[in-house]
Amino acid sequence: MSKTFAERLSKAQHTSGSLVCVGLDPDPAKLPQDLGGASLGETSSPLYAFNRRIVDATFDIAAAYKPQIAFYSAVAAEDQLVLSIRYIRERAPGALVILDAKRGDIGNTAEAYAREAFERYGADAVTVNPYMGADSVRPFLARPDRGALLLCRTSNSGGQDFQDLRLDGLPLYRHVAQQAASHWNQHGNLMLVVGATVPREMAELRAAHPSVPFLVPGIGAQGGDLEATLAAGLDAQGAGLLISASRSIIYAGGGAPAAIRAAAAELHAAINRERTKSRAA
Amino acid sequence: MSKTFAERLSKAQHTSGSLVCVGLDPDPAKLPQDLGGASLGETSSPLYAFNRRIVDATFDIAAAYKPQIAFYSAVAAEDQLVLSIRYIRERAPGALVILDAKRGDIGNTAEAYAREAFERYGADAVTVNPYMGADSVRPFLARPDRGALLLCRTSNSGGQDFQDLRLDGLPLYRHVAQQAASHWNQHGNLMLVVGATVPREMAELRAAHPSVPFLVPGIGAQGGDLEATLAAGLDAQGAGLLISASRSIIYAGGGAPAAIRAAAAELHAAINRERTKSRAA
Repeated sequence: MSKTFAERLSKAQHTSGSLVCVGLDPDPAKLPQDLGGASLGETSSPLYAFNRRIVDATFDIAAAYKPQIAFYSAVAAEDQLVLSIRYIRERAPGALVILDAKRGDIGNTAEAYAREAFERYGADAVTVNPYMGADSVRPFLARPDRGALLLCRTSNSGGQDFQDLRLDGLPLYRHVAQQAASHWNQHGNLMLVVGATVPREMAELRAAHPSVPFLVPGIGAQGGDLEATLAAGLDAQGAGLLISASRSIIYAGGGAPAAIRAAAAELHAAINRERTKSRAA
Repeated sequence: MSKTFAERLSKAQHTSGSLVCVGLDPDPAKLPQDLGGASLGETSSPLYAFNRRIVDATFDIAAAYKPQIAFYSAVAAEDQLVLSIRYIRERAPGALVILDAKRGDIGNTAEAYAREAFERYGADAVTVNPYMGADSVRPFLARPDRGALLLCRTSNSGGQDFQDLRLDGLPLYRHVAQQAASHWNQHGNLMLVVGATVPREMAELRAAHPSVPFLVPGIGAQGGDLEATLAAGLDAQGAGLLISASRSIIYAGGGAPAAIRAAAAELHAAINRERTKSRAA
């Protein structure tokens, strides 16, 4: 844990040979049938059981796992989140754990949220919302070995409502990126969250910030374009991205282990084909 | 619970005769000494014990209580938050419970967060972040009997970083207010979060949105000006505000019950003096 976050991100990508980030968003209403049934059904920890299955199916081709905390908090299953992260550490020791929590609050509260992410859950990084400005983000960037992934241009339909407003000549998401990259990133542990649904905006951001890594949601269920994303977002070394997919992997084939593996492997292979092309070009 | 949120807000203010919202932000590092000592010290639920004390001291002069979830999540004390809310329901049945959580995420995740706030914790309202736009906020506004308190112009120093950027002559926070009030507020259950540290901005917002109620943090520890806030934010009926204070009340006199009561009563009286003046004017 003495490495910087940037070194750990790079190592996670190299060890796995992968830019894939698997989202662990276990919606209790959508769990695989056999987790409600006989084979694993006696468990009182169905989210944890499902996550073990996902990690077992993907441990060697995932650079990172990203549990979405809402799915655990909604059903009072924080204990299963703790167990799931512990399981990732055993089974995929090189992979990063990103707590997807979109935190953001005034300074003393943000410090409490940082303790939640980094101490309670032992996450390597946490997603953070920029709306409240510098003092709401700084506590998440204070530990050089942990990262903060700042919402910049998000993949959802509402992403355009405010993020695309051109304020003083530049869209809001560009202001966010600029402020964060130039003033808040002393430890080089900042990433930006940029959706796969907006490759043009991603290309602009890559041009403006050649060395800031991006977390990219929106591939899969949200319909983002993988090829356009990689063309827009890869850095000069053919990395600089974590491509996140959740529903399209974990619910593949009704959540059967082989289908989960196949969906993750397909994404992994598709990404690496494009990376090879871009290096050859 | 069949009343609308707007009716319940109004009733909470009338029953208590108060606009005071007491923030329940129990930082484990700052608990009153006697909660670590002999009198209540055997408890394994110090946050809950502290909250009972605060509610006992303020139940008849608080229109609302606002637990900040970070202080519970940071120390794995969700159970104490549940108990605290249950205690508020018994001791101050007319008061609203606002879960301060600053949530905001894509649609299906926002729905999970709404279940967390409204079902798991049974909160009457929850604070929400606008950065991700319409689909990230709508699930919190979908229940007519529950409210969403949308961050608009926040009280912290970073509040100016992005919220004050201007587009077409209007700052971002005005765009947020306008979009939310005109398009997202079908059930009349929207409130805006506007800091006491920015009375000029609050006056602008009140002029533009005469009937949207504001939650106002920033009085007390953050140094907001109460008189200016009330002049700027009261609506035509001398209401339309919940004035929130946390640290200045709950840690008054080291957290002694009489000091907590005195701090809350003083704020309550100061607010009502100004309300009387404004009605007389």
